[in-house]
Amino acid sequence: MVIAKRIDLLGTETAFAVSAEAATFAAKGNVVFPFHLGDLNYPTPSTVVDGAFKAVKDGKNGYCPSGGISELREAIAADVSASHGVEYTAENVVVQSGGKPTIGKFIMTLMNPGDEVLYPNPGYPIYESQIEFYGGVAIPYAYVETETGFALDFDALEATITDKTRLLIFNDLQNPMGAESSVSEHEKLAELVLEHDLYVLCDEAYFDMRYAGTSISLVTQPVMVERCVILYTFSKKFAMTGWRLGASIGPKEIVDVIAKININDESCTTHFIQYGGVAGLAGDQTEVLAILDSLEERRDVIVDALNGIEGVSCFRPNATFYVWPNVTEAARNKGMDDYEVFRRAALHATGVSFCNRLHFGRPAPDETERYIRFAYSGIDVDQIAEGMALFKDFCES
Amino acid sequence: MVIAKRIDLLGTETAFAVSAEAATFAAKGNVVFPFHLGDLNYPTPSTVVDGAFKAVKDGKNGYCPSGGISELREAIAADVSASHGVEYTAENVVVQSGGKPTIGKFIMTLMNPGDEVLYPNPGYPIYESQIEFYGGVAIPYAYVETETGFALDFDALEATITDKTRLLIFNDLQNPMGAESSVSEHEKLAELVLEHDLYVLCDEAYFDMRYAGTSISLVTQPVMVERCVILYTFSKKFAMTGWRLGASIGPKEIVDVIAKININDESCTTHFIQYGGVAGLAGDQTEVLAILDSLEERRDVIVDALNGIEGVSCFRPNATFYVWPNVTEAARNKGMDDYEVFRRAALHATGVSFCNRLHFGRPAPDETERYIRFAYSGIDVDQIAEGMALFKDFCES
Repeated sequence: MVIAKRIDLLGTETAFAVSAEAATFAAKGNVVFPFHLGDLNYPTPSTVVDGAFKAVKDGKNGYCPSGGISELREAIAADVSASHGVEYTAENVVVQSGGKPTIGKFIMTLMNPGDEVLYPNPGYPIYESQIEFYGGVAIPYAYVETETGFALDFDALEATITDKTRLLIFNDLQNPMGAESSVSEHEKLAELVLEHDLYVLCDEAYFDMRYAGTSISLVTQPVMVERCVILYTFSKKFAMTGWRLGASIGPKEIVDVIAKININDESCTTHFIQYGGVAGLAGDQTEVLAILDSLEERRDVIVDALNGIEGVSCFRPNATFYVWPNVTEAARNKGMDDYEVFRRAALHATGVSFCNRLHFGRPAPDETERYIRFAYSGIDVDQIAEGMALFKDFCES
Repeated sequence: MVIAKRIDLLGTETAFAVSAEAATFAAKGNVVFPFHLGDLNYPTPSTVVDGAFKAVKDGKNGYCPSGGISELREAIAADVSASHGVEYTAENVVVQSGGKPTIGKFIMTLMNPGDEVLYPNPGYPIYESQIEFYGGVAIPYAYVETETGFALDFDALEATITDKTRLLIFNDLQNPMGAESSVSEHEKLAELVLEHDLYVLCDEAYFDMRYAGTSISLVTQPVMVERCVILYTFSKKFAMTGWRLGASIGPKEIVDVIAKININDESCTTHFIQYGGVAGLAGDQTEVLAILDSLEERRDVIVDALNGIEGVSCFRPNATFYVWPNVTEAARNKGMDDYEVFRRAALHATGVSFCNRLHFGRPAPDETERYIRFAYSGIDVDQIAEGMALFKDFCES
């Protein structure tokens, strides 16, 4: 059998290998502290559940338009217009089966083979995978650690731009770092986009997952509404990762092409679930806010614990549900400069399971600092405290 | 804005334009008889609904494996093994968001740019669209009308095979014709597949939608289990087109690649819906069988009515929910040799809305007979009778 050559270019989420290792360890009767998963252990708010169930009973079991039901497109446009302070209408919205489909469809729609695409590294591994799968050239850009978190390595980013650079993938409120760009970074990025005639995927999966301050989108910069496609998802805010509901939001011309891709790929997103999304956006937000409150408590527990470990320092992000501690010294103290040696040793000694820098792209040759990622979305606060105590013992022994 | 070149190669389902025209006509206060839709106007069986709702309540709202939950993979493998008389296991099954995703993923996995792919014409338009989108050469093959229905134009098909032919798309129990291959056709096809080292997409979306006799799959022929990927869907049998649940079934090596594509495209198929699928397959089949009984009644009413119209003749398929009447004489009698003129005139004179040959691929230059497609899945039997009476008046006046 000869598998097509393009499959050689297809990447994956290597974090799944971490899940598998944790599962194997747990199957032997060990306690696992699951910090490796970017999933949530909260029930979906009842507004969404009730709205979806009602739609099934109302006979919404047949096909719906490939771009989504008009009620949901309108509701998402209103939601994003309000939260972003810009004007979108239903024509700017195409419903997707989750956040992720927007990545590939954005690339298919706007990138020709040989085009260069800037993407964050460390970053979500599917960007690089999809750029290369569709014949593009993936050009990484980095973040640098600052006194107050992480900042775009803007000069380095600018220096990679060539006359073949066509797209920028920007994941503000970033997975895995929890990094967040300042408005002045947005201004500089927007200038760059216009100067080099780029289009931007704004992956805003974590836009509403924040505990202090206000999320500000790149689309608020001049002309950026015409240049950006927003990746929007219900997955995080409504604890519905497994429901698969999201949208691509952007210029109508792009949105129309993506709707045509939908016809080819999956006909439509699940019909009755779209009514669940409408109900979730329109309904009482008590349960949604309770999830955020709980996540904030978890964040504080894990960040405080990490900063109490010798050789570990951790920035406290105001958004996402990830932390990205610098463990360079702790790993060196253990004689475990190798990322996977450190990760596996921690798992087997303590049951604490996490991802590391290697799960978010290939490290640059000059990287010296060592980072790991803890997700606190799928683990209760008591377990976080217990796991962190064990991890502290591990690091300091 | 410059849309990527590959989008020029992307086709669509032009049948959606017929839906739009029917909707416009209805919006003016006219009665529409919807024969253009391949959708069902039955509720989803309660076994599926209850199973899915229970799963949400049981907390199945997070991600699940990209290949599907093991319970569903096992249940589908058992279902297909039993109905096909061959041996599949969960390792041969990768769950999809409906039937359609298998088309593109099969092509991505096995076709290199420049490869030739045989596909049925008339046939489902997404085959040609996806072959060309991924850089292949779409080579149509035809069916010929016989005394007892439609048969593959086998010699013509064989004559198109070159050393670049790599894949065959085979939609036995065919949309739009309702055509069904005999076992001897399967034998000849299987020989051809082995002789020319082909791989086959067996689109079996309508495998269980039958009223008499037994569906027999190409995979029952020698070695074909190693050569075929089955497109399997819950959409038709369980009246759940809008739920988006299906699977690709085939050799493990192909299935594993498709699961990796799933990770990139949509993470997973909706988690709790997969439990609905498990419950539907395991549960009482009374409601499923009632749908089939009702469809059979509709089929008989529409076929009898069509055969009572001067200038129309219609084969009575034992499977699918489509009929493909030959209307050559009726159209000629009306002075409407042009497909779209005939279709629009019928819609505006009677409200009877249907697709025609043009919605299922480009006609060959030597085609002289005229066919239209009536779907009877989304229209009640009384409406069928009423619509057919009007269509008879239209054709004979």
